[in-house]
Amino acid sequence: MTRGVFITFEGIDGAGKTTQIQLLASALAKANVDVVCTREPGGTQLGDQIRSLLLSRENQSMTPRTEALLYAASRAQLVEEVIVPSLQAGKVVLCDRYVDASIAYQGGGLGLGEEAVARMNEFAVNGVLPDLTILFDLPLADARERLRQSRGTAHLDRIESRDAAYFSRVQAAFARLSAEAKSRIQIVDARHSVDALQQEIYHIVWKHIAREKNLER
Amino acid sequence: MTRGVFITFEGIDGAGKTTQIQLLASALAKANVDVVCTREPGGTQLGDQIRSLLLSRENQSMTPRTEALLYAASRAQLVEEVIVPSLQAGKVVLCDRYVDASIAYQGGGLGLGEEAVARMNEFAVNGVLPDLTILFDLPLADARERLRQSRGTAHLDRIESRDAAYFSRVQAAFARLSAEAKSRIQIVDARHSVDALQQEIYHIVWKHIAREKNLER
Repeated sequence: MTRGVFITFEGIDGAGKTTQIQLLASALAKANVDVVCTREPGGTQLGDQIRSLLLSRENQSMTPRTEALLYAASRAQLVEEVIVPSLQAGKVVLCDRYVDASIAYQGGGLGLGEEAVARMNEFAVNGVLPDLTILFDLPLADARERLRQSRGTAHLDRIESRDAAYFSRVQAAFARLSAEAKSRIQIVDARHSVDALQQEIYHIVWKHIAREKNLER
Repeated sequence: MTRGVFITFEGIDGAGKTTQIQLLASALAKANVDVVCTREPGGTQLGDQIRSLLLSRENQSMTPRTEALLYAASRAQLVEEVIVPSLQAGKVVLCDRYVDASIAYQGGGLGLGEEAVARMNEFAVNGVLPDLTILFDLPLADARERLRQSRGTAHLDRIESRDAAYFSRVQAAFARLSAEAKSRIQIVDARHSVDALQQEIYHIVWKHIAREKNLER
């Protein structure tokens, strides 16, 4: 069976993931790789409705557990509707955030426990896990400053508008995750220029895809 | 600490739960019991938004796992926003459906596995489980006929409009649950008249409340 490659992109808001995913997708497409780009929460019609609930600043009463379960619901839909069919068709799937984000944001940031959130997400993804994860590393102050510059404080969503202590717990959880899964999670320094970062990411991804294709033969 | 009593009502659609809960709430209120009535999915402002996603006939693409996670998300919100504060205030909480419904409908009916759905829901309810559950037992054909008469086929929601094989798996799962939790789950025969059923339920609930109050002394 031909099988695609599942690559996720993680790191705190403002690290430049979205820009880099778009650049990577164009570069891979030019190299005749069949690419599918998607994101969380959302990526499906139903997932976009869940995304609205999650990011709306009006839903301030949402409890941490509800938040974690809504992310998982959007994820479960994305897995069955987009990720699995794309992988079965042999495509390379680039996904902006996945289970690691929930472990870091809700498990670490909101204090639900990284282990508990990981276990609940096993139900959501039903064994579909990334082959490779690019983790964008950036000092918290830099990330906040970039977000402020690009959107202004008034336009931050419910999650982005949380305080610095929250984001520093998220960062710490990402650091623990990357220490535990060294072969899957590749850290890139998001302070580098857009071009330099793009080259670094392309190199990591290309090497990974080449190895997978070799293994298939 | 004064602690309330948490009572849930389960059984397939059309069994008459909603009517009976209302009658029970009035009777308990007359007896000076402080009662809170709620329902799933919904029961909170956010839960009602999740309820719309779940029941809309437009969301036919929703996968079974997404459905189970959305029910759990609505439940987590209800637990922290309504159930826990009410129990802490010493009230009697009557809830139309709870975890058993997910185990039966998504675990049994949709085939996700009763054990897997139960485990995922442990994350959602964080240890808040009913003291007593009234399970409405009714032959499937009777339940379908009652729903048809009261609303007409065109007005059934996304879940109610599923086929008979689905509801018979749901029934079987409820039967297994009640066999496993005999002391918590009390079965009532929903073919009885509204009045007779009300007397039976009131008797069960009153006995339970009296015993709990005795234990507290």
